[in-house]
Amino acid sequence: MNEVNDINGIEVQFLFDFGSPNAYLCHKVLPALTERTGARIEAVPVLLGGLFKLSSNRSPMEAFAGIPNKLAYEHLEMQRFITRHRLDRFKMNPFFPVNTLKIMRAAVAAQELGVASAYNDAMFAALWEQGRNMDDAGEVAAVLREAGLDDAALAAKAQEPEVKARLAANTQQAFERGAFGSPTFFVGDAMYFGKDRLGDVEDAVRAGSNTPH
Amino acid sequence: MNEVNDINGIEVQFLFDFGSPNAYLCHKVLPALTERTGARIEAVPVLLGGLFKLSSNRSPMEAFAGIPNKLAYEHLEMQRFITRHRLDRFKMNPFFPVNTLKIMRAAVAAQELGVASAYNDAMFAALWEQGRNMDDAGEVAAVLREAGLDDAALAAKAQEPEVKARLAANTQQAFERGAFGSPTFFVGDAMYFGKDRLGDVEDAVRAGSNTPH
Repeated sequence: MNEVNDINGIEVQFLFDFGSPNAYLCHKVLPALTERTGARIEAVPVLLGGLFKLSSNRSPMEAFAGIPNKLAYEHLEMQRFITRHRLDRFKMNPFFPVNTLKIMRAAVAAQELGVASAYNDAMFAALWEQGRNMDDAGEVAAVLREAGLDDAALAAKAQEPEVKARLAANTQQAFERGAFGSPTFFVGDAMYFGKDRLGDVEDAVRAGSNTPH
Repeated sequence: MNEVNDINGIEVQFLFDFGSPNAYLCHKVLPALTERTGARIEAVPVLLGGLFKLSSNRSPMEAFAGIPNKLAYEHLEMQRFITRHRLDRFKMNPFFPVNTLKIMRAAVAAQELGVASAYNDAMFAALWEQGRNMDDAGEVAAVLREAGLDDAALAAKAQEPEVKARLAANTQQAFERGAFGSPTFFVGDAMYFGKDRLGDVEDAVRAGSNTPH
């Protein structure tokens, strides 16, 4: 499911961590990209904290903290994206920044259990629409139950060594392919960083496809 | 000419410093934007070093120096832009980074003398096509003469207190309007940063205009 080198036809890999508000914004607009192009989206869980450490990068919030104009511009561009795509359910999470290790491991577990789509929807909404604390195991379980997911099975699976290793390997592989943050996209080996590259991602999909919708 | 609050019809302000390779890339593609939309481009000289100081920002080369994946991605996106727009005369300047104080003052002087377009073309080409040392007054004079410009008049005008003050004021005003780097664009009060926002700049122009070409 996340064999990143096994690309059948046109596939967009969406490397994400739930802790990134820009990953949420992309998560919301990717289905429309699929509708327009027929491209398949593969959501690949990576641990953003790990990727920052490997690449010596920091979050925009940290990196731009001392550059008020740049931070304000980052917010302006988020707002423009939200307005353009009518993503009016978005709100900043009061617990931000969140330690996402457990919920990202569970994202890999959800892939193994065949419920990745429902799991990702539930987590992104809990964090970036409902303002809930996804660093609290009880709250995570409640969110999963509300979404009709088996929270006990996901929590157990997330603790398996293979699942932990898979998240670490995804993160390491992302770094080795050139990634330094989230959201990152790959179309084949071509990398695109950030929500503002979605137009380029779509162009790459169309350039590589003979059967657009 | 650079009264930034006096906008007649649809105008795009292009805040630039010759020292920015991305400003060169934008300079090359802006005429096509004008052809497509009818928008008037106002090139506003700002001193990038001053803007960095005012905004506590640094150049991407400095800021990303310790983040190799990010630096590589920055170069990749430059190359993609160059390829997309067939800007194959671009090459990095061997004297980069260049102290641009004198040639930016002379850019204001060129406005006063009514030769800004020819001056800007000559400077951008000397730096980002011909690899010349624009920190050397003799070399600057040679470039200007080759372009049919009056190098002595420009050099004299660039030393006038009013011209020096105008560049400083442009830079201060850019900071106060939210800028933190080059290239920066304004369509009315809406700010856009970087070559990758040119599509958004064009959208803003079209949204504000009833008479596109």
